[in-house]
Amino acid sequence: MTPKIARFLREQQPATPCLILDVDRVEDNFRALRRTLPLARIYYAVKANPAPQILERLVGLSSFFDAASFEEVAACLAAGASPDAISFGNTIKKVSAIRQAHERGVTLFAFDSIEELEKLAKHAPGASVYCRILVENEGADWPLSRKFGTTVENAKSLMLRAGQLGLDPYGLSFHVGSQQTTTRAYEVAIAKVAMLFTDLTNAGVNLRMMNLGGGFPVRYRDDVPDIDRFGDAIMTAMVEHFGNNLPEMFIEPGRFVVGDAGLVSAEVVLVCRREPNDPVRWVYLDIGRFGGLAETEGEAIRYRIVTEHDGGKTGPVAIAGPTCDGADILYEKSNYRLPMALTCGDRVELLSTGAYVTTYASQRFNGFAPLAEYYL
Amino acid sequence: MTPKIARFLREQQPATPCLILDVDRVEDNFRALRRTLPLARIYYAVKANPAPQILERLVGLSSFFDAASFEEVAACLAAGASPDAISFGNTIKKVSAIRQAHERGVTLFAFDSIEELEKLAKHAPGASVYCRILVENEGADWPLSRKFGTTVENAKSLMLRAGQLGLDPYGLSFHVGSQQTTTRAYEVAIAKVAMLFTDLTNAGVNLRMMNLGGGFPVRYRDDVPDIDRFGDAIMTAMVEHFGNNLPEMFIEPGRFVVGDAGLVSAEVVLVCRREPNDPVRWVYLDIGRFGGLAETEGEAIRYRIVTEHDGGKTGPVAIAGPTCDGADILYEKSNYRLPMALTCGDRVELLSTGAYVTTYASQRFNGFAPLAEYYL
Repeated sequence: MTPKIARFLREQQPATPCLILDVDRVEDNFRALRRTLPLARIYYAVKANPAPQILERLVGLSSFFDAASFEEVAACLAAGASPDAISFGNTIKKVSAIRQAHERGVTLFAFDSIEELEKLAKHAPGASVYCRILVENEGADWPLSRKFGTTVENAKSLMLRAGQLGLDPYGLSFHVGSQQTTTRAYEVAIAKVAMLFTDLTNAGVNLRMMNLGGGFPVRYRDDVPDIDRFGDAIMTAMVEHFGNNLPEMFIEPGRFVVGDAGLVSAEVVLVCRREPNDPVRWVYLDIGRFGGLAETEGEAIRYRIVTEHDGGKTGPVAIAGPTCDGADILYEKSNYRLPMALTCGDRVELLSTGAYVTTYASQRFNGFAPLAEYYL
Repeated sequence: MTPKIARFLREQQPATPCLILDVDRVEDNFRALRRTLPLARIYYAVKANPAPQILERLVGLSSFFDAASFEEVAACLAAGASPDAISFGNTIKKVSAIRQAHERGVTLFAFDSIEELEKLAKHAPGASVYCRILVENEGADWPLSRKFGTTVENAKSLMLRAGQLGLDPYGLSFHVGSQQTTTRAYEVAIAKVAMLFTDLTNAGVNLRMMNLGGGFPVRYRDDVPDIDRFGDAIMTAMVEHFGNNLPEMFIEPGRFVVGDAGLVSAEVVLVCRREPNDPVRWVYLDIGRFGGLAETEGEAIRYRIVTEHDGGKTGPVAIAGPTCDGADILYEKSNYRLPMALTCGDRVELLSTGAYVTTYASQRFNGFAPLAEYYL
């Protein structure tokens, strides 16, 4: 919790549930990443939090942007980003989205299939393209592997084909999975993709770029390695494979940039036991999986929760959202403990919820409005 | 697909993704339910689809309403429902929601814990209350069991306490889980709750009502028993336990009333193979788990999908949504097959998506707007 957020909470006592985010912290995180990987171009993953206040601050820091849809491209442009600074990173794009982005000046697109490549050749002629390679997601709390990426072998023929279709075969990308807690995932992926890079270069393809994706972790309930550890591991691996003839390096952080800049302030709606002598209390909050905390699915992301009773005696709890949906349970198996004094009406804060919360919120499930948002 | 929806699709070709729902079908379903359970009072579960057009039609049919939040109470009142016709069925309610509902004239509330009962006594003094009992959810595709309900033993002491707190101990409720495909679940639950009912009556509590909840299934990809089978099983069980001294019976259908009244029209964004010789094609639609199809989590609800190529040769597919989220996969393990001719830009229809779709839709995940809605 930053001092600015603490003051806002104290002075404004905003209605819950709400997200409060300190944009200065976004800038700090961006600068930290730039310091640790000075050779990498940072494409902020807009989907992590597309608030105009964040995009505008990042434009001011000369950030680049990774967009998942034409709507996100438009949001970046509206925040003052140049089309040259935008990569359309979703490998699955509507024809209309490709065409609109191309018309607005975007020239960099991701793909991972021949079908998408042909769509790009037709609707964004001459564009620079990069192919996404499937890599292991071991160590990631929110893995991506099955849905995206292709094999090294297939990527090779696709990149050769890109040139024949009049596109610029610009680079290769991978993604080690979101909230990746091991540096080894990057090392293994870089080794794999660097081999293909060399292979394609030897085949005469004018490759210039390695997109290392995102995945850099945020400290939630459990500790994660420092960002410098990731920077070191990545640079060591890159130098090992490319020597001093390094390609352009792109990274696509989202969670790392905004995650710990925000918190969700919520209200305890009910504390009860399912049976009188059950040691586990059920704590129901006014925000749940369908109010924005979608990443608690499978208890994947385990947020830290602070209360006004911290320091007192604690006991085991299950934590759930306010809807009538049986799936709206945040934590039942992750051994959460909360103060015994916690009671209905208390305020609690879920820390580091600046990423992947506001946009996931359902528009009105069970009638509940999406959480309010404050950017300080 | 009703004739009205077919004509709308043909003549309007609305932009995708969108929900198109035939309100006449809602009325048909409501009447069918009333026919099969003429002694039961029907409380429509507003959360299934709170569109004003649906609520207004049901008000015209003298339906009652099961609300999950004060916002849903307000929606019912706005549609012309009398406060007497509304049950506040969520066992987890903010104090402010209890107070607002009570001020607007709502007098019937659910609970399943001493803490909630005390909130009701304080903020809705004199209200009629019913206690939710935990029952087995076996046979349900979308179970509810762990989050709600209490034991028979605890319910007994809670109902005795309700009277002492100045509340009216009106009835007992249970829920066999959503999309419940077996009649046996109702029989077992009725037996369990009827025993408590008799027990409490003998203890001098003036119980008058059994709330049998919802859960009545809709035909998705797989067949389900006809609604009359559920009606018969329920009435047989009720008569077995209560003879001709039947209590008031409430049911809370949501899915059954609106599910097959609507469909989602979507566009195929990409069809590709993850490797050239993979027999499985990946089909990406412009709607996924975060665009409204949340009930495909764990592939729980398996919608029927129709295409313009139906009748032609088919092959195995995985089906996913349009976002960059690795969890945005609808079906990978449920042996879906779609026509080999299916291609990018084709329109497909997901049938029986009138329930639990529009409200689950995220407000703008990956920049995508929630699906449009048309009520005919």
